[in-house]
Amino acid sequence: MPELRKDPVTGRWVIISTARAKRPNDFRAETVRPRASSPNCPFCLGNEDRTPPEILAYRSNGSGPNTDGWSVRVVPNKFPALGIEGELDRQGEGVFDKMNGIGAHEVIIETPEHDKTMSELSEKRIEDVLWAFRDRMLDLRKDTRFRYVLIFKNHGESAGASLEHTHSQLIALPIVPKRIREEVDGARQYYQFKERCIYCDILRQELDSKVRIIAENPDFVTLSPYAPRFPFETWILPKRHECFFENSPTHVYENMARALKSVLLKMDQVLEYPAFNLVLQSAPLQENTHDFFHWRLEYMPRLVKVAGFEWGSEFYINPVLPEDAAKHLREAEAAVPA
Amino acid sequence: MPELRKDPVTGRWVIISTARAKRPNDFRAETVRPRASSPNCPFCLGNEDRTPPEILAYRSNGSGPNTDGWSVRVVPNKFPALGIEGELDRQGEGVFDKMNGIGAHEVIIETPEHDKTMSELSEKRIEDVLWAFRDRMLDLRKDTRFRYVLIFKNHGESAGASLEHTHSQLIALPIVPKRIREEVDGARQYYQFKERCIYCDILRQELDSKVRIIAENPDFVTLSPYAPRFPFETWILPKRHECFFENSPTHVYENMARALKSVLLKMDQVLEYPAFNLVLQSAPLQENTHDFFHWRLEYMPRLVKVAGFEWGSEFYINPVLPEDAAKHLREAEAAVPA
Repeated sequence: MPELRKDPVTGRWVIISTARAKRPNDFRAETVRPRASSPNCPFCLGNEDRTPPEILAYRSNGSGPNTDGWSVRVVPNKFPALGIEGELDRQGEGVFDKMNGIGAHEVIIETPEHDKTMSELSEKRIEDVLWAFRDRMLDLRKDTRFRYVLIFKNHGESAGASLEHTHSQLIALPIVPKRIREEVDGARQYYQFKERCIYCDILRQELDSKVRIIAENPDFVTLSPYAPRFPFETWILPKRHECFFENSPTHVYENMARALKSVLLKMDQVLEYPAFNLVLQSAPLQENTHDFFHWRLEYMPRLVKVAGFEWGSEFYINPVLPEDAAKHLREAEAAVPA
Repeated sequence: MPELRKDPVTGRWVIISTARAKRPNDFRAETVRPRASSPNCPFCLGNEDRTPPEILAYRSNGSGPNTDGWSVRVVPNKFPALGIEGELDRQGEGVFDKMNGIGAHEVIIETPEHDKTMSELSEKRIEDVLWAFRDRMLDLRKDTRFRYVLIFKNHGESAGASLEHTHSQLIALPIVPKRIREEVDGARQYYQFKERCIYCDILRQELDSKVRIIAENPDFVTLSPYAPRFPFETWILPKRHECFFENSPTHVYENMARALKSVLLKMDQVLEYPAFNLVLQSAPLQENTHDFFHWRLEYMPRLVKVAGFEWGSEFYINPVLPEDAAKHLREAEAAVPA
């Protein structure tokens, strides 16, 4: 019998349809392995002039901006979805509303090496990427036009990556996106009723039952959420209550890099190098959500096609029980312990 | 300058990023053309025993059930996402909620001919498909366990179709999907404030400005919505206010078939036989939404990849202005007038 499960924060129901269940290696999805360096790749060492001038770079050898010698490099997106200059200029037009598309759209180049995937970077290098995320968020939140900064990663063509060289992206937005608004509203409602953070309650219940836990380290719990939209969707949740990713103490980034590398390796093993999206869900800027919002990192492998049913309903059919996904991932040997 | 536009019903903002704008034939998307009949296709004439026993079929020659001689045939999905037998059995588990996955999952085989796409069916045959949708909705709404019936079509592999032979699907659900709930809530709010249907107001404004109108016939307006999630997303809206698709008078189905065939032909011409999804947005069952909800048919070509940004935010980046999409489609010659 299929099961309907409700996401406790947003109230979204999903269909867990076990009759269509597959074993991990039954998904015929894209296998993503980087090819050797391409001379035209704008993210490769020595091609620094093929991107817009850099915003931030970590360099250990004292090299100058937009030259080689960097380990992580942040540049404006050459084809930005939003423009950085101007005012919002909110306007109505009869029943419709619009504003100028003001925002920032940046690319975080995670390594100068073209032939490495994120999972192949050392923990220290992944940690540097997280520090770059943090530095950019701290900088962008000073701009009062922005209400949200979304950091995400598209890995593989079916996950929307247009360039192969491993990178993440950041979009700063003048409004809070619908999904975050729903999470914040749901978490606030729960807090008003219970006076507790719902994510902290979820963590307690999950650590108690253990069936959806994938891994744990001093600062993070990696788990399959109870009502996931996608098969093998995975959350990395900080144990310590905090609404902003960028407000964490140093050891949190260190342990987050460990947890993330472990998840990436486990996924590569269980799902054979899948295409995936990573999304950092942090709190809206300029709002007080401290008591009830709890940041997290989401990993979503792209294993199934989204079709008319999902586009029409925003209801999702997930062919894999999260308990089964967690078991497969828990048992996968990761080269690095979480 | 990119533009942010707000959907007036749900409040969802989208980014219309014209800097990335493309001409219709710049999308390198799947081209979907059916191949000649395959002997193993369960939807082909003569293979009626390869599907579960039929629920409904239109036959003109007095042939018996599950034999040939049909023009439209409705069968249960062989791999249903939901089960038809049983009770909902709503349960809690700490902070989580679930219920049994009760529902109906049916396939509407639109023609016995394997080598025809929906756009190649005659208006009369498309009208028969719409009558089959209506017959099934009228039957399923008698089952008080169901709160919503979603009818959709996946055309082409990138739109989620697993079988090539042209067909639509129907899923009856024990809850109202999130997207419909948001539309109903948004439309209700507007009605409470204005005492008018928001879709009727949109229709009036769009017919007045004309910039997003694609076609019109006595019963329908075909238009590009103001804040579309996807490039070339198109709505077919009935002129007469009605919340339920299945409650329309006969001439509405006739004119809907004309409007739909016209859209399908225009899209095939402008976008070179794209993969697409169709979704019928009708009102929730067992609720009184008569005053403010207004049914419609949505056409969404699959031209762009959905990536981490969209999955993380439910915010969409659309590279085509709906005014430009409407112009291209308006000017496309359709073999049949709308």
